[in-house]
Amino acid sequence: MLTNPYYSVEAQGPYVLHDIGDLRLEEGGTLRNCKLGYATFGTLNADKSNAILMPTWYSGTHAILQQVYIVKHHALDPERYFIIVVNQIGSGISSSPHNTPFPADRANFPKVRIGDDVQAQHRLVTEKFGIERLALVVGGSMGAQQTFEWAVRYPDMVRRAAPIAGTAKNSVHDFLFTETLVEAITSDPGWNGGWYSSNWDVRAGLERHAKIWAVMGWSPAFFSRQRFRALGFSSLEDFIANFMNGYFGVMDPNDLLCMAWKWQRGDVSRITGGNLEQALRRVKAKTFVMPIDSDMFFPPSDCEFEQKLIPNSELRPIHTVDGHLGLFGTDPEYIGQVDRHLNELLSTNA
Amino acid sequence: MLTNPYYSVEAQGPYVLHDIGDLRLEEGGTLRNCKLGYATFGTLNADKSNAILMPTWYSGTHAILQQVYIVKHHALDPERYFIIVVNQIGSGISSSPHNTPFPADRANFPKVRIGDDVQAQHRLVTEKFGIERLALVVGGSMGAQQTFEWAVRYPDMVRRAAPIAGTAKNSVHDFLFTETLVEAITSDPGWNGGWYSSNWDVRAGLERHAKIWAVMGWSPAFFSRQRFRALGFSSLEDFIANFMNGYFGVMDPNDLLCMAWKWQRGDVSRITGGNLEQALRRVKAKTFVMPIDSDMFFPPSDCEFEQKLIPNSELRPIHTVDGHLGLFGTDPEYIGQVDRHLNELLSTNA
Repeated sequence: MLTNPYYSVEAQGPYVLHDIGDLRLEEGGTLRNCKLGYATFGTLNADKSNAILMPTWYSGTHAILQQVYIVKHHALDPERYFIIVVNQIGSGISSSPHNTPFPADRANFPKVRIGDDVQAQHRLVTEKFGIERLALVVGGSMGAQQTFEWAVRYPDMVRRAAPIAGTAKNSVHDFLFTETLVEAITSDPGWNGGWYSSNWDVRAGLERHAKIWAVMGWSPAFFSRQRFRALGFSSLEDFIANFMNGYFGVMDPNDLLCMAWKWQRGDVSRITGGNLEQALRRVKAKTFVMPIDSDMFFPPSDCEFEQKLIPNSELRPIHTVDGHLGLFGTDPEYIGQVDRHLNELLSTNA
Repeated sequence: MLTNPYYSVEAQGPYVLHDIGDLRLEEGGTLRNCKLGYATFGTLNADKSNAILMPTWYSGTHAILQQVYIVKHHALDPERYFIIVVNQIGSGISSSPHNTPFPADRANFPKVRIGDDVQAQHRLVTEKFGIERLALVVGGSMGAQQTFEWAVRYPDMVRRAAPIAGTAKNSVHDFLFTETLVEAITSDPGWNGGWYSSNWDVRAGLERHAKIWAVMGWSPAFFSRQRFRALGFSSLEDFIANFMNGYFGVMDPNDLLCMAWKWQRGDVSRITGGNLEQALRRVKAKTFVMPIDSDMFFPPSDCEFEQKLIPNSELRPIHTVDGHLGLFGTDPEYIGQVDRHLNELLSTNA
């Protein structure tokens, strides 16, 4: 078990750690006393009809989701809804390699799948809050993977779904991309098979990982338009060092690897014997599939292919040159589009 | 100096090594007795009006260009034209880190720029062959960078130019992408600052380099359509191991790094004080700018931006899902499109 101040309440803002008990994992392991770190915003109404669930993306926590999405007068308005943001397993806040005690810590942390997250979140939502139906499940990237998984696994529980910049079944290209992220970390001798004593031992690997993210996370146009200057960085070097590496460099490498492994293998059709059509036909939620048009690894065409298999769904692309990482709300035009689609979705009878 | 059988005549087919003398480099170094490895196809006619120059791309040699492009009844028909394929400096065939004798070998090989290549090729073309005008300069990727540089530096000598899947000034995004390739190699402890004794010492770095190429070199659709199966590979793993790593794994790491450094800094506006418009206005060649529509790092929009600055030019996009590496002619629809554009270009009065 390692301590890493990045995941503290001081750094991330308040959250609750809830023990859901032992979680038996799809890959065969067990997370003993699995803890989910969550934060809630707003108030659950009497008939519990205003609950929204928002799972986190790769490297993300409740803090960034609150900052960008959960804002008064926006679609995810805490004055109207009770919004539960659950940090995914491996996020560094919920049970993760770095914060799990011996002997299941670090490299010995078991393999976790998106389906395990959804099972764990289901326990939290039903057992802790007694919520039987969710007004909306919404998330970006790996949050979208969890959103799809929720809608497929618990079709009667999810009234509306809004997967943003993510897919129900991960693509081969995306798998390969994630593999390069993994290898950037594991190739660092300081990683030491997962048995480093501080994330700083793996700083070179984390830097390479951050640079590959820079290439694939934004878009060619993001750089040709020098969007990094608009974000307050004086040069490309400044942006790479102080945004990309500043962001990833403080994280726990094994935690990132845990999430990457899940991300690579996201696939809702695991419960239908690999039949994606059959899996997506299970969805009863009114679903808005929301790809980002300049996304280099969850391209709109992949999202459209899946959307067409979901009965009560629409494709609602988001337009920005900021690529996948537009999810951070870096483009001032981004959140308005998301709000417009989510407001419409939330106003539908579902 | 290292020996590497990959660059031998046995592996690459016949080529001539021509000593152009000392080459003073833009960055300040000198390549003493700089050797250009070239191969010619066809016969130079009496008035020397049928000469075509084709420089190589990153990792490429004359062998692949001959195989894909220089074929009877195709546009680059050796029965009609005298085609000189020049292997770029750092290619492993011309002067390169691995084949240069002490003390300028390996990590001590000087920094070379695209402009140096063009200067060296100009010597070859004029001094060795006595050619004063080129009917066409054509190349893909780094070959396109050299094509642009030729058209800008020697406007009266280049009658026609066909840069395929490359730009006149490298983009920031592309620079970053190339940086991840560089770091994949240099992060391997076996690279040892460039002082390895065999490319096999750097096999892990070369493998990571090959995998990043797989992500950025093809396209998401190439993988979703399982194009690698059509190319004769039984699975993704088979494709990565036996195509991507089979291709790059035998190459010399320092040679790749030499080319990557050049590629990152390709910029025709160096001779006009950074003014790209002014540089491209110098071009007198009839120019067809030919981006590949699914290219992830030389995207059509970047190519179109530059094409509009070239006086006598047209944008001629190539359509394929094979991305940048469509240059290898993997898509049967590819070469027909290239031929059609090149035939039209070659038939114009220029």
